[in-house]
Amino acid sequence: MTKQRRQKLLAQLESKGVNALLVATPENRRYLSGFSGSAGYLLLGPEHNLIVADGRYWAQCANQCPDLDLVKFRQEEFKSLVECAAAQVQGDSGVLGIEGKHMVVADFQALQRALPQGWSVQSVEDSVETIRQCKDDSELELMRKAAQVADRAFLKALECLKAGIKERDFCLELEYQMQKLGARKPAFDSIVASGPNGAFPHAGVTDRVIEQHELITVDFGAYRDGYNSDITRTIWLGRLNERNRFLYESVREAQQRAVDAVKPGKTCKEIDAVARQSLIDAGLGDYFSHGLGHGIGLAVHELPGVRSTSEVVLEPGMVVTIEPGVYIPGETGCRIEDSVLVTADGCEKITRSDYQEIGQSHPLETVGA
Amino acid sequence: MTKQRRQKLLAQLESKGVNALLVATPENRRYLSGFSGSAGYLLLGPEHNLIVADGRYWAQCANQCPDLDLVKFRQEEFKSLVECAAAQVQGDSGVLGIEGKHMVVADFQALQRALPQGWSVQSVEDSVETIRQCKDDSELELMRKAAQVADRAFLKALECLKAGIKERDFCLELEYQMQKLGARKPAFDSIVASGPNGAFPHAGVTDRVIEQHELITVDFGAYRDGYNSDITRTIWLGRLNERNRFLYESVREAQQRAVDAVKPGKTCKEIDAVARQSLIDAGLGDYFSHGLGHGIGLAVHELPGVRSTSEVVLEPGMVVTIEPGVYIPGETGCRIEDSVLVTADGCEKITRSDYQEIGQSHPLETVGA
Repeated sequence: MTKQRRQKLLAQLESKGVNALLVATPENRRYLSGFSGSAGYLLLGPEHNLIVADGRYWAQCANQCPDLDLVKFRQEEFKSLVECAAAQVQGDSGVLGIEGKHMVVADFQALQRALPQGWSVQSVEDSVETIRQCKDDSELELMRKAAQVADRAFLKALECLKAGIKERDFCLELEYQMQKLGARKPAFDSIVASGPNGAFPHAGVTDRVIEQHELITVDFGAYRDGYNSDITRTIWLGRLNERNRFLYESVREAQQRAVDAVKPGKTCKEIDAVARQSLIDAGLGDYFSHGLGHGIGLAVHELPGVRSTSEVVLEPGMVVTIEPGVYIPGETGCRIEDSVLVTADGCEKITRSDYQEIGQSHPLETVGA
Repeated sequence: MTKQRRQKLLAQLESKGVNALLVATPENRRYLSGFSGSAGYLLLGPEHNLIVADGRYWAQCANQCPDLDLVKFRQEEFKSLVECAAAQVQGDSGVLGIEGKHMVVADFQALQRALPQGWSVQSVEDSVETIRQCKDDSELELMRKAAQVADRAFLKALECLKAGIKERDFCLELEYQMQKLGARKPAFDSIVASGPNGAFPHAGVTDRVIEQHELITVDFGAYRDGYNSDITRTIWLGRLNERNRFLYESVREAQQRAVDAVKPGKTCKEIDAVARQSLIDAGLGDYFSHGLGHGIGLAVHELPGVRSTSEVVLEPGMVVTIEPGVYIPGETGCRIEDSVLVTADGCEKITRSDYQEIGQSHPLETVGA
């Protein structure tokens, strides 16, 4: 599987005039080699097929990526990992690609000093990331499991949701349940934003006490076997007033319309526009202050961005989030998010938690627990 | 407080011939400004005193760093945050410092394109990090709290430690308790490495079932109010055989000797040598395969490194970990770690959990619960 991925990469590199690529982003490294450690360089090209790692990972490399040559980095021989990688470059001259959005300046400068004279360094952006956009079956299986863990944990956590609980404590229960159900950790810092805190798209959690009748935005996901899930539900306790009910229904409708519009051949900006127009029609356009969504997989945020400026055309196998929201300064906010897989003729939701239905006294009554 | 820190920085910059520094490392940003958001640039120098942030953080900047000028980044005007920061540079010419170990190549290249013609960019390494080595009183208060949370959570988690529990489940309880007690999250991916898994210094956790009579390395810490704690205890259930008891006692002695040696004026390599010699004397020198410790504070790993090559001289206010360990391939391992504050005439332990005492049937009997 990783071999097929590397072959796709080689075709890409050729089209860019790059003779070898140095890969260090953890997600790209794992995708192309199977190696799940926290440090190391892949050096890949028609004449290069190796991994450079320090002593902590030699056994792991032999186990996880036996089809790559392992170069053992020893600090006595090379000051840094990147210099050790530079010394593996074969041939008198060529162009070495680096991940420009990931490599730091200090490593870049050390690499330039250590490379054979005839070689130059070229910043390559999003090369592996573009290949990663379309998931293969082995990835989809892991992504479905990561989503399932989040869905189930949410149901469990709702059992402790009651008026008087702090955002922080509800968040902790949710994250605990995800891990009980098999997540290694939360995919990102979860958000539980109640009442006025919902007006901030990236609210985090506070010690605010959750009360009845207010909107509560819960944005969370599970990290499991290298893959992430990402889901947002807006829920409440008791009855909503007309205003909050209107906000919720408007976002729900915008999200449903956008999900319904997802299919191969559409551009990301077209999908973004569907949700945006729906909220404009509801008079809420000014309060939808971010893009509609993002790709998800080995990283929580990856290509393609689902934004008003993105010309990327959806293809089967892509997994993107669809997450419109409204944020009313000083008042409240609401967001609803699912991860969807683009299929041959539409899309399939990967995240499956029920939505809050209007007018119920407690979310548990509607989510089927 | 942050103003005093910025004044120290200005003196540093002058000595390096740098006219202004662009700061984006989250820890450095927070240290110098109080701003705790996840993105933004500080531009600091005799003629520069500002923060550049996107719309998510405008209110937060006004609140957390009112003594800096807020420059509002809008994507319509500048493609990226770094280009917006470049446009704030005042004067016809000068040298702009960047954090070379943090800034990625893509931003570096965009910055060079966007800067006024007379300005050049210079990679500056560890400038703020060096100032951060010595903690002030407000930092020490937060660090003591982060350590206390870890200490107390460990005691609570020990209540569920029994033969038959999986490493993963004990780890989850420990992380859950830290958060119950006020941590925002674990400071890093905790390690619970039992029996043969202890032979890997960075073991993580597995589904392995913990049994009696084996060494269990537990390495964990709390992240709270921006600061981190880091502590390792090696514990066991039931009685140890002679070999494991010897490993434990040898590491315990090496750690105690190194802690006793910490005082102002000593170099980091001298402290490392104390622990190393102690393990060599026990015939275990070959199995202590990493440096003795590291600075800790806003980051889990920061300056100074306490390694065999470090000439850094200890000063009052520095906080470093002292964590010798032995790792016997295929057999087991043991590590003991405390964070210590260098005082006027020695050091003070910040982490305070009791150590496992030999021969007790259960850790709880000795940790005073």
